[in-house]
Amino acid sequence: MAVYTDVSDEELGAFIEGYDVGRLLSFKGIAEGVENSNFLVHTDAASFILTLYEKRVNPNDLPYFLNLLQHLADKGLSCPQPVAASGGALLGELAGRPAALVTFLEGMWVKRPKTVHCGELGKAMARLHLAGQDYAGFRKNALDVHGWRPLFDQCSARSNEVHEGLADEIAAELSHLEASWPSDLPSGVIHADLFPDNVFFLGQELSGLIDFYFACNDAFAYDIAICLNAWCFEVDGAFNVTKAKALLKGYASVRPLTADESKALPILSRGAALRFLLTRLYDWLSVPEGAMVTPKDPLEYLKKLRFHQTVKNSEAYGLVA
Amino acid sequence: MAVYTDVSDEELGAFIEGYDVGRLLSFKGIAEGVENSNFLVHTDAASFILTLYEKRVNPNDLPYFLNLLQHLADKGLSCPQPVAASGGALLGELAGRPAALVTFLEGMWVKRPKTVHCGELGKAMARLHLAGQDYAGFRKNALDVHGWRPLFDQCSARSNEVHEGLADEIAAELSHLEASWPSDLPSGVIHADLFPDNVFFLGQELSGLIDFYFACNDAFAYDIAICLNAWCFEVDGAFNVTKAKALLKGYASVRPLTADESKALPILSRGAALRFLLTRLYDWLSVPEGAMVTPKDPLEYLKKLRFHQTVKNSEAYGLVA
Repeated sequence: MAVYTDVSDEELGAFIEGYDVGRLLSFKGIAEGVENSNFLVHTDAASFILTLYEKRVNPNDLPYFLNLLQHLADKGLSCPQPVAASGGALLGELAGRPAALVTFLEGMWVKRPKTVHCGELGKAMARLHLAGQDYAGFRKNALDVHGWRPLFDQCSARSNEVHEGLADEIAAELSHLEASWPSDLPSGVIHADLFPDNVFFLGQELSGLIDFYFACNDAFAYDIAICLNAWCFEVDGAFNVTKAKALLKGYASVRPLTADESKALPILSRGAALRFLLTRLYDWLSVPEGAMVTPKDPLEYLKKLRFHQTVKNSEAYGLVA
Repeated sequence: MAVYTDVSDEELGAFIEGYDVGRLLSFKGIAEGVENSNFLVHTDAASFILTLYEKRVNPNDLPYFLNLLQHLADKGLSCPQPVAASGGALLGELAGRPAALVTFLEGMWVKRPKTVHCGELGKAMARLHLAGQDYAGFRKNALDVHGWRPLFDQCSARSNEVHEGLADEIAAELSHLEASWPSDLPSGVIHADLFPDNVFFLGQELSGLIDFYFACNDAFAYDIAICLNAWCFEVDGAFNVTKAKALLKGYASVRPLTADESKALPILSRGAALRFLLTRLYDWLSVPEGAMVTPKDPLEYLKKLRFHQTVKNSEAYGLVA
């Protein structure tokens, strides 16, 4: 939650003049996103989000993300739509950083999602998967099954500082997943980070999806598995099968799962849990002493992983055969 | 620049229901203000700023500030206007903190003010002083000449860490100011913190004044002296008399200075420079090791103080006798 780069009125004014978006009225740095600097911009025509991409984002990936948003918006998906500068470019430069202007999406993320929200999420995710099918861009998932071991190698030595026996537990799970990870599942563009804070609602109605900066090409069902982890556990760690059922039912009402996808849900869910366990563990061990940022608790995902390890088949997720 | 308190969609929804401001569409924590948490709220009717008052603000002062904003807005001054809840209260509670909703002011603060901006500032400040004259509230200036020594006592021992000889220099100035500080100047409500980031412009037109959380009752000319310090020095430390002249001319076009006020400008300017030197010094010495906040440089105000010490009379500020 931060604005890393200061932008002056003069710099922003000059930048906005390159766009046909009306007269600039105000801009506020917003406390959102941990990777980039974001500003809410008002003009006399509309509201926009201006993003300055900071060093953690690979600038070579930006065309993939921005063209994807354009593609999805053209298909009618509710997501931030990049605004082209008068010269046609979606990507500009401001304060020495790559910068893009996108339309502002009204809506709020839901801190405590209810079953109805999970159902709407399922539908929207399926629409995203369908809308992305003919997207020409390709981006490998850097955090897929092949990316986990290199990440683990960087933190395995200190894992037990976080939890006694954690290193062994992760090593065993990693070997299992590497040996049995499914291939050839239906694939395409996935969001890959569809946590509640990236999904906006107005009341019970889903108003849009945001933050596509982990989007990549991977198995659709892996995106579902991420959401089962992110949306269907209660604060006390208990899995809520009613929410999972609503999520899967919502999804299938737009895009039915294949038999292979249904069968793969338990292992994909284990993989998704391990992926967030590993990145959180890495962040946890990387935070400098005395920093003001509180990293997210890796052990939340250890508990989720252990749940998925007990799952025998997809019926445990409420999937009706 | 921070949001200190998280607010959930549910909490905010329940809070906004107490106001007749239309349907809640979105809210974003904004990176503005160092004392409080601020959110930009969109409803289908308008935009608002929601402020949660954190512990550095004395809750007993809040009615003074909020009633003042209401009073000034009623008089036609462009400033955030508090929105009363349906029950009539300007002050509410959210997430365990005192909270207020005010109208959103379009405009941007000017990082490098030009002479024209200084002239507009002068006019707006004079309008503020006139509009506040019949305000019933009273708040002592906690940082007036009597407040400086207690502040200095808390940091004098370590002053020389910041600059060799600083403690002696401040002590001498403080004694001089305490002995010769003018009384009986025309007084009323002053803003007391009218730095460029609290003054919004749309192009060259001043669109409003914000952040009245230092407002108090004190000499009008002291407010001018603060602005001479805050607006009329260049980045290299040089005093820009053209800007000062425009500021004073703009002010006098709305509210002419009395002879006593004109005469007092040099000592008031020294006092204003010392006030910000002391608070910055205090903050500089109070920041914990390793904190991510960079405090503002106290020595900027030492240089300004030394300039004012060389001033013989108000003509040095471009005041035409």
